[in-house]
Order: sequence, then structure tokens, then C-alpha cells
Amino acid sequence: MEKGIIVFQPEGKRIKVDFGTSLLDAAKKAGVKLETLCGGLTKCGKCRIRIDRGAENLNKVAEAELRLAERGMFSREFIEKGYRLACVTKMESSGKIFRSGPVKGHVLVTVPLETLQGKQKILTEAIETTVKLNPLVNKYFIELPPPTLDDPTPDFERVIRAIRKEHGLDDLEIERELLEQMPSSLRKGGWKLTFTVWGDREIISIESGKTVERKYGVAVDIGTSTIVGYLIDLNSGKLMSTSATVNPQISHGEDVMRRITYCMENPNGLDKINELVIGALNDIIDKACSNADVKPEEIYELTVVGNTAMHHFFLKLNPKFLGLSPFTPVVKKGIDLKARELGLKVNPGANVHVLPVIDGFVGADNVGVILSTNLYDEPELTLAIDVGTNGEIVLGNKDYIEVCSCAAGPAFEGGHLKHGMRGTEGAVEKVTIEPDTLDVMYGTIDDAPARGICGSGVVDAAAELFKAGVVLRTGQINAGVKNTRIRKSNNGLEFVLVWSDETEGNVEDIVITQKDIREIQLAKAALYAGASILMKRRRILEKDIDRVYLAGAFGSYVDKWSAKIIGLYPDIPIDRVKSVGNAAGAGARQALISSERRRGAEIIAKNAHYLELTVAPDFQNEFLSAMYFPHSDINRFPSLRKLCEKPVLGPK
Amino acid sequence: MEKGIIVFQPEGKRIKVDFGTSLLDAAKKAGVKLETLCGGLTKCGKCRIRIDRGAENLNKVAEAELRLAERGMFSREFIEKGYRLACVTKMESSGKIFRSGPVKGHVLVTVPLETLQGKQKILTEAIETTVKLNPLVNKYFIELPPPTLDDPTPDFERVIRAIRKEHGLDDLEIERELLEQMPSSLRKGGWKLTFTVWGDREIISIESGKTVERKYGVAVDIGTSTIVGYLIDLNSGKLMSTSATVNPQISHGEDVMRRITYCMENPNGLDKINELVIGALNDIIDKACSNADVKPEEIYELTVVGNTAMHHFFLKLNPKFLGLSPFTPVVKKGIDLKARELGLKVNPGANVHVLPVIDGFVGADNVGVILSTNLYDEPELTLAIDVGTNGEIVLGNKDYIEVCSCAAGPAFEGGHLKHGMRGTEGAVEKVTIEPDTLDVMYGTIDDAPARGICGSGVVDAAAELFKAGVVLRTGQINAGVKNTRIRKSNNGLEFVLVWSDETEGNVEDIVITQKDIREIQLAKAALYAGASILMKRRRILEKDIDRVYLAGAFGSYVDKWSAKIIGLYPDIPIDRVKSVGNAAGAGARQALISSERRRGAEIIAKNAHYLELTVAPDFQNEFLSAMYFPHSDINRFPSLRKLCEKPVLGPK
Repeated sequence: MEKGIIVFQPEGKRIKVDFGTSLLDAAKKAGVKLETLCGGLTKCGKCRIRIDRGAENLNKVAEAELRLAERGMFSREFIEKGYRLACVTKMESSGKIFRSGPVKGHVLVTVPLETLQGKQKILTEAIETTVKLNPLVNKYFIELPPPTLDDPTPDFERVIRAIRKEHGLDDLEIERELLEQMPSSLRKGGWKLTFTVWGDREIISIESGKTVERKYGVAVDIGTSTIVGYLIDLNSGKLMSTSATVNPQISHGEDVMRRITYCMENPNGLDKINELVIGALNDIIDKACSNADVKPEEIYELTVVGNTAMHHFFLKLNPKFLGLSPFTPVVKKGIDLKARELGLKVNPGANVHVLPVIDGFVGADNVGVILSTNLYDEPELTLAIDVGTNGEIVLGNKDYIEVCSCAAGPAFEGGHLKHGMRGTEGAVEKVTIEPDTLDVMYGTIDDAPARGICGSGVVDAAAELFKAGVVLRTGQINAGVKNTRIRKSNNGLEFVLVWSDETEGNVEDIVITQKDIREIQLAKAALYAGASILMKRRRILEKDIDRVYLAGAFGSYVDKWSAKIIGLYPDIPIDRVKSVGNAAGAGARQALISSERRRGAEIIAKNAHYLELTVAPDFQNEFLSAMYFPHSDINRFPSLRKLCEKPVLGPK
Repeated sequence: MEKGIIVFQPEGKRIKVDFGTSLLDAAKKAGVKLETLCGGLTKCGKCRIRIDRGAENLNKVAEAELRLAERGMFSREFIEKGYRLACVTKMESSGKIFRSGPVKGHVLVTVPLETLQGKQKILTEAIETTVKLNPLVNKYFIELPPPTLDDPTPDFERVIRAIRKEHGLDDLEIERELLEQMPSSLRKGGWKLTFTVWGDREIISIESGKTVERKYGVAVDIGTSTIVGYLIDLNSGKLMSTSATVNPQISHGEDVMRRITYCMENPNGLDKINELVIGALNDIIDKACSNADVKPEEIYELTVVGNTAMHHFFLKLNPKFLGLSPFTPVVKKGIDLKARELGLKVNPGANVHVLPVIDGFVGADNVGVILSTNLYDEPELTLAIDVGTNGEIVLGNKDYIEVCSCAAGPAFEGGHLKHGMRGTEGAVEKVTIEPDTLDVMYGTIDDAPARGICGSGVVDAAAELFKAGVVLRTGQINAGVKNTRIRKSNNGLEFVLVWSDETEGNVEDIVITQKDIREIQLAKAALYAGASILMKRRRILEKDIDRVYLAGAFGSYVDKWSAKIIGLYPDIPIDRVKSVGNAAGAGARQALISSERRRGAEIIAKNAHYLELTVAPDFQNEFLSAMYFPHSDINRFPSLRKLCEKPVLGPK
């Protein structure tokens, strides 16, 4: 049987397959896991890939693909750019060979990140390759002459003299705590030791023998609901292990405001809230270390991002005025302090760098997003949207940075929805609805039985229901559509996404209610209005925007096409839209391994202009007109005109 | 009755007295207390004063003065320089008036510091007048605009902006602990506050309202036996109050080595030793504050001096290697840290600056001496001797600083002597012995009944006994002298200084034993040998030395003439010898009020060359020949040749 070679980018995996093999199967054989809800039945349109070279070795665009495109499940725009569905695209010949650098084969395929399954969607690694490794922590191995009556130079000055002589570092400082141990350290180490120096200015650790190759750091992203720690080898910049946990502060309030209130209303409330995050971090560090065979004492620096409230809780700063207008943070600039002071169980001299915040509602996490996306340093005009309970929107490039914060509400995190849930096991995260039959295909996290619906699932569902005509542009569920999935409840119409008998253990059907749709409308309108006002302020049109970054867990998992259909962001060509995963955490990681990036964070915080939406004169108007799917003014979404203008489907 | 006006310098006190009045009485009327042991009987020679102007208005030099000079109790050298004894010098005419600036009168008298009684002998104030007031602590009163939605600048950056605008200070830092309180401080203070800034770089305190006029600091001298604290107004440089206490570490050993051993042999020994000094300091601060109506929170900086062991105990640094050859300190350079970290009860943000040390045996106290005497900054070649259990000797000027440490032993602090005691109430501190009768005149501290003999008393006694021929140049008590005061004991001859029936409560006579004389010989020989070796190293002769400073409590109270007679320091004209009181404490005070002086301390520690006497090749020889009174080689003491060559008195 004849064979051809397919190369899957960006991983560069090569596979030789028989003619007739679908690219979905080829990818599977090559170890590249593609997203698919329908299992290759050409129904869900999720397995989109782009053919970069060798299209002539493949079958022609299939009828099925065109049909899905017609239904809005797979954009015709995509087909024009070389996108196809892997399930119906097949190897047919091996006439022509492409060659691109060291890579050669018959077909070159790029798998878009959103088509990759599961964890690989977090693409922080890709961004980090551009950051020069230049951590603030350095280790120096030194052999010292022991003191004698002729050379009774004190211990500290003896060390300083040697480091200056061998490494040219001047004016090094040291903390009392380390001085305390210095005499015994030097003598136990037989005067052959490794000194860890932070920022070329302070000795933070003294170890016997040569330990220069053991140098680690941890980047931390403290989210309102999840805390993630990345253990990094500071000698190579490599990620050693990742560890995450639920933010245990949740026991004192799911959202930021409730936790601030808890701090204010309880004696030692702030102490308790602080202890919780410190304890969680210690657990994370412990786990990350044992996974990577690293000792916590080998961690010499931590970088921390988080929203402004998390930032205050972590630093044990009074959060009271974050909760009251004008929502003033205590401090903006980045903070350096000792791990010991915070009770973190790493090397006691380790430095903890908390990245700067921009405003009460735009925190260090957002600085991390701006940092890791390089938005602040490049000429390309970028719109970055970080969606959480609070949505932060950034518009800018190297010349300016405008930010605002939108009260998007918790809908995109599964909150305030009848069957909403966090993005954990069993959450419906992908939804496709067959427009004719209203048959639902869905995927759940970890392929577990469906338990509820998370943010990305709800956006998919809303977009699919809109495309299918079940939901009208006003957001109203179309009572005219007759289908068993559409039914009346005490609170109006609802759409059954998952029947209870489809999965074990569910006692009721998983539904999307009219109220759920309203929540989604409110959330997406807030985000759209924020972006729109930033653009107006700078007289920017959609065409001027070079790229849209969707950040955060939701931004990673949400289908960018579905998000556009509901009008979550302005009508910018879909190939300029990119998920950037946990960009906040990536920012923390970059700041950990690069002093230039750390300076970059200060520049961002200093230069970013915060726009308070509630006092922007056109906010109410922008917000209300964005309540429609995708918008009340269809001229704002020319690429969706056809979808919007097609006749509303009647009852089947 | 005719009258004349006498002016007493340096205090500038004026008094109009009848002709015939002695200057001793005139001084008393003027409130200038002169030292006298014999009560004006022209026997002790202690009430020396210098007549600067108007000698023609006084009686001529009296026979009694010449006689005392003959006996070596009052130097003829002195008479040539215009010195007289106040008890026999009388106002006789008012023919000529002197005028010196705003001061005028008939006689201008300078009272040497050693002739002033009691506390005034500590002359740190005199030295401080030359130090420009330039403390590191500054206070700024600022009115801030409160935050609004249009100007939501975070609290810290709001403060920084205002301080930069009004006072031009950039890049101010702040500690987390202060940031923690900042939001409530600003709001409670109605946005009108006083910010305390340390070193033009860190905000260390925030207070409501305008408190710029309340700014204090404490200079501390931690001695092995005594701790002294000076409360200073940092706005004026003025001394507000002084407070002292016994170093409670004494319970774990009277000397440094025993305390180091205690630290090494007991679990948490260093912690305990440290807690003791911190506790004592807190008591001192409390007392000094309540005496001056200052709140401890109004203290924003402390400077600390002490010997190297006290320095390590205070900073809780491992002292083990200070106790083992080559006696290496942990650190040399000055240390800054927060009062809070050390548990000191002052403003929690207060900075504690511990002055640098020079070597294991030459500590921050000695740096204080070199600093306050200005030795390091002037062309005059100076020999400074700081006598304690350990004697530190400095030779140098602005071009070089040589230091050494002499194991002088505790004799000069009253230790190892049969009736030795510390310089506390009832200690015999001044002794005059009538050479013919061996009658003893003595003064005690606080004029209390004699209980024992302290360092200055023992030096006086040794010199007087030598002058009287009771003690020979070898240090042996002259068995040939027949007097009831000289008697045999089980341990050889002894001299009765105070009969038990002279004072209440004493059960035995206070004596100077042959062994006591040996202890004094050892102690003074160590000091002389140290000075001599430093001089040899730099090829310096006695005539090259512009001044000799005697520092420390002993140096303050010891009679410089008696000290010279026993050969405690080289034969340098007595008018070049000056007591400088607690020069170590004065150094701490200068470093507290002047950033230039603080830099000076670092320069001293860096440039001072420490000479280890025990490895100096000629040390043994120098030491042994200095055991004689004043020295085995009388050519070393030409000014005492006459005294040494006079025939030894036989029995009376």
C-alpha cells in the first residue's frame, strides 16, 4: 500500500500513513491528540487543522465541511485560509515533497492550539522561549583561605573579598539571620562553599561545597479560586513541575468582596485569610518539589501574581479600601520581601517578588498578562481579554496601555447559572448542537459523566442555540421552536442540554434556562463594552487591531468562534484571535527567570492607564447595545451579518 | 571692701569676690565644683587651675605650691605653664581688666577637666559641638489630596508623589509592616500626616498631624559591665537625658570569655545572653524617655557601640570564634537593622545602626573613640588609650590608624585586687599620701564611706606609694620603711590605705598588698608595651605625639599625673594628655546625629590596621621592661628622672 508522510506542527511530530488515512487518525498515531466531540463523524467541527504545505496530496474539501461551514459551525473564512476538518481530510497521494528547514514530508499540518486536547492548551511555554534567561539569583562557588593571626579578616569581609576578587561583585549585603550562621557554615564547609547572591547585591544563602547546579524558583499565580505554582530550574529556565490547589480562602467567601468583608468584620480576619493562602502555597511548593526531586531549601526566589485583593491578602495589607469607592489599593509598585517574613517554607533567605498592580480592579495578574504577551514591548496593537469573575481588558502596544475592568460576573466561571459549575471533572466544556434536530454533542472535562456546565461550555451552548435559532438576537428563547429539548419551567423556557438518563447519578436534566442566557448576555456585554470604550478612547477600529489575546482558564478553553458569535469581543478576524492560556502565570514565570522582564512589569504598572468604566459617559449605552447576540448594531459585526440575517428557524 | 571679677572657663561663669578670697572659694560661689581631697589645706595638689589672664591681680605663687611640686604632687612644669592650686591662689587687686570677646573681668581662669568634680568629667559634649547636625532621620509634614475615582492612585504612590513634589525625594521605600497600616493611618490622619524618612530612602513611620518637632534618637554604649544610653533630640542634637545600668549579662560571667563560653555550653545560651542586653536596653530607653518626657515611639534611630563580643551578643551573632584563635569576628562593617527585629521597644520602624568593629579585640567602642576624638580626620598625631578589662591603644591621625589590644587584666576596674571594687559608691578614687608621714588623704565616690578601692584610686595609690618611696621601682614594697601603715600579712607586705575604724561598717582595713602592686604592674606594662610597639612600628618618638587621649571611665577618672608616674603611657608632656571621658559613647552620639560621622566610622574600620601584639617579636621584651615604675630604662621617662633618682626614703 502506498504511504505518505505527514508532519504535525508546532510539535513537529512526523508519521508515515497509508493512503486513505484521515488526518484525525494520523494525528492519533503520531501522538497528537486532537479535540473532537463527535468522534470523527463530521458533526462537531472541532477538529480544525490548517494545511500549510502539500494540500495537493490530500482529498478535496468535503461536502460535509462545506455543510458545517454553512451552519456556522466551521467558518467559511477558515476554509479560505486553508483550514480543514481532520476527520474528513485524507491522505491520497505523495507526489510532491515539501521541505522546510530540517523538516520534510508530503503534508505539513499546523494544529491550532484550540484543537489540541486538554492540558496542552496552556501555551505559556511557547511564549517563554523568547525570554532571555537572566534570573536575579546567582550562585558562586568559592574557596576561602581560613583566617590566621596574620590575616584575621572577619568572616563576612573574608567572603566579600573573595567574591569581589573572583566575580567582581561589590558592596554585597547580608541579613542578620544569615550572618548568625555564617561562622559555623564557613567552618563546617571547610571554607569551600557556594554563596547564593540575589540581585547582585545580597548574599541570601550559604551552602557547603559546590551546589551551583541546584538553583530553583517558583512562580505563583494566586487566583480567587485556584492557586498555581510553577517550579522552575533557574539554571535552564525549564519548568520542572506544576502544582495547583483550590484557594482555601473560598471558605470565607467565593468572591473577592465577600473575603474583604470577612477581613473587616472578623478580629484577625486578615491574619486568617493570609494564613490560608500561605498554607496553600506551602502545600503547592511541597508537592511541586517532591515531584521534581527538589528540596524546598533549594528554592531561592518566588514571583507572585494575583488580582489586587489576592495581592493584599498575600502581603497581609489592609484590604478595606479595596472594597469601598474609589477602591484604592495600598500600593502599586512591586514588592520584595523575605520568604521567612511571610512564613513560606523555602530557603529562608529566598526573595519573594510580588509583581506590581495597576489598580484596585486590575492586579498583578493582569500585569503578568501584559508582560507575558509582550503587549507592552511590541508595535502590534493588541486587545487582551482576561476573563474571570472580573474581566480585565487591555488595549495597547509599546506606545500606550489602556486597561479597564468589567464586572462580568461569575457566569463565565459557571456561577449564577442553574447548572453552572467550575471547570472541574464532569463539567460540560464543549457543546455542538445540530441545527436541524437540535441533537446535542458535548464533551466534559476528563471525559467524566456530565455533572454541570462550565464557562466555555455555556458560551458554546449559547452560540449554538443562537445559530440554531433557539435563542433570538435579543437573547430570548424562541418559543416557536418545537422540540422536546425546549420546555417550560416555573421560571420560563429552558433548553435541555443533557438528559439525566444520559449519565449516571444525575437526578435531573442539565439545562440552560432563560435566566442563564440573561447572565451570559450581561457578562459578555460587559466585556464587549469595556473593549469598545477602550477602542473609542484611542479612536481604534477593529481593523487596526493586530491581535486579540484571550487569557485565563476561560480564555484558554472557550471556543473563540463561539465567543465571537455571542459578541464577547469585537469583530476581529478569527485568525488574529489567540488563546494565551494562563498568561498571568506565564508573566510570573518570566519575571522569575528574567530581570529585564521584572523591570518590564514595573514599566507596565507605571505606564498603564486605568479607565474607570463606571464614570465613562458612553458606558451604559455601550453596555445595553452589547446585550444582543452579537450586538444590537449588526454593523459592528459584519462577519456575522449572514448568520444574523438568516430567517429564524421555525418549528420542526 | 574692694572686689574683683573672676571668670571660670570653659563654662564662662563669672563671680565678683572680695580681695583675699581664694579661687577655690570663688569657684564654689560661682557654682564651679573643683576637686579637692584635702579640703583646701594645700596638701593633695588636686585643685589645679590655669590662670590665663590677670595673673597680676593674684597673689604670687605660694611656697606651699612649690613644696608640693617638689614632692611630685604638682608638677613644676605646670607652674611654668601658669597652673596654680586654687586653694592658695587669692584675688588681690583689680587694676587691669581683660577683655576676650564678650567676656571681661580681672582674672580669667581655665578649669582643667580633671579638676572638675564628678559627672562633669565626661566631656563628650565639648567634642560634639564640632559635629554638624545632619541626622539620617528626617520628618516631613504633608497634606495629601484624598483618592477619587478620577485619581485612584494607590496610597503608597500617593504619598510618594507628594513627598517627591514637596521635598524632592525619589525612590522611597517602605516596609511591609508599615504598608499594612498605611491605609488606616492616612484616613485616620485626615490626609494630613507626618512621614519619617530614614536615610532619604525609606519611610519608617507615619503619624497623624504635624509632629516634625518630635524627633529623637538614642546612642548606646554597651560595655562589658555597664550599659549607657543617651537620649538625643535629633532636631537640635541636644542631649535630653542619660540613663545607665549594669550589664545584666554579668550573671553569666564577669568577663567576655566567660560569657562566650556560656553561649557555647548552654542550649540557647546566645539567645539568653542576647535577651539580657535587649531587656536592659529597653529599661534604659524607658527611663531616659520618662526623664525627658519623650515617648519611646518618638525614637526613630539608635546607634550602638560596644566591644566585639558585646556587638555579637547584641546582634545575636555566633561568638564562638571570637573566643578561639585567631579570634575572628563574624562581620566588620556597620550593620543596619530594624528595632522591631531586635525586640527593642522604640518606634517599630526605627533603624538600629551598630557601628563597625575593627577586630576580635578592637570593637565598635574603639571605633567610637577614634571617631569622637576626630583622630582619623586631623593631622595631629594622637595616641588614644581606652582602658577597660581589655586595653585598646590607637596611634594615628588622618594618614594612618594603628590599633592594638592589650590584655591589661581587670586591675584598673578594681578586679584581682584585695580590696578592689568597681567605680561605684564608696570606692576610693583619689589618693594622696604625705611622703613624710605617710598620712593618707583619699576621696570616695559620692563621698560615701570607703568600701574599697577602684581603678583610679589604685593608680593614685601606686604612684603616691612610689613617690613616697614605699614602693620601689621594681614594684616591691620597701620593707625598710617603718610605719604603722606598712605591715606583714600571710601574703607578704601590705600598706593600709584606710583604717577600718575610719569608716562605719568596715570590718577590716582597706589595704594595698604586694600582690595588688604586681597586678597594677602587669596591667600598666601591657598598656605601655602596646603603645610602645605601635610607636616603633611607625618609627614615632614621644616628641612626635601631639596628644594623648585617655578614654573610658577609668581614663576619665584616673589622675593623668599618677598614671604617668607609674608608667602607664609613654613620657609625653602632661599638657598634651587629656581625658576624653566616654569617648566610645560620644562616638555613638556623633554617629547618631551626623551621617558624615557615620561614614567616618566605616572609614575608620576599613583603614585601621590591627596589630596582634602576641605575634609582635619585641612584645615580651617591651612588656617585661615596662613592669618597672615607670620603666626599667629611665631614659624612656626623662621627665621623671629626678623622681626616680632621688634617694629612697629610709624609715622615719
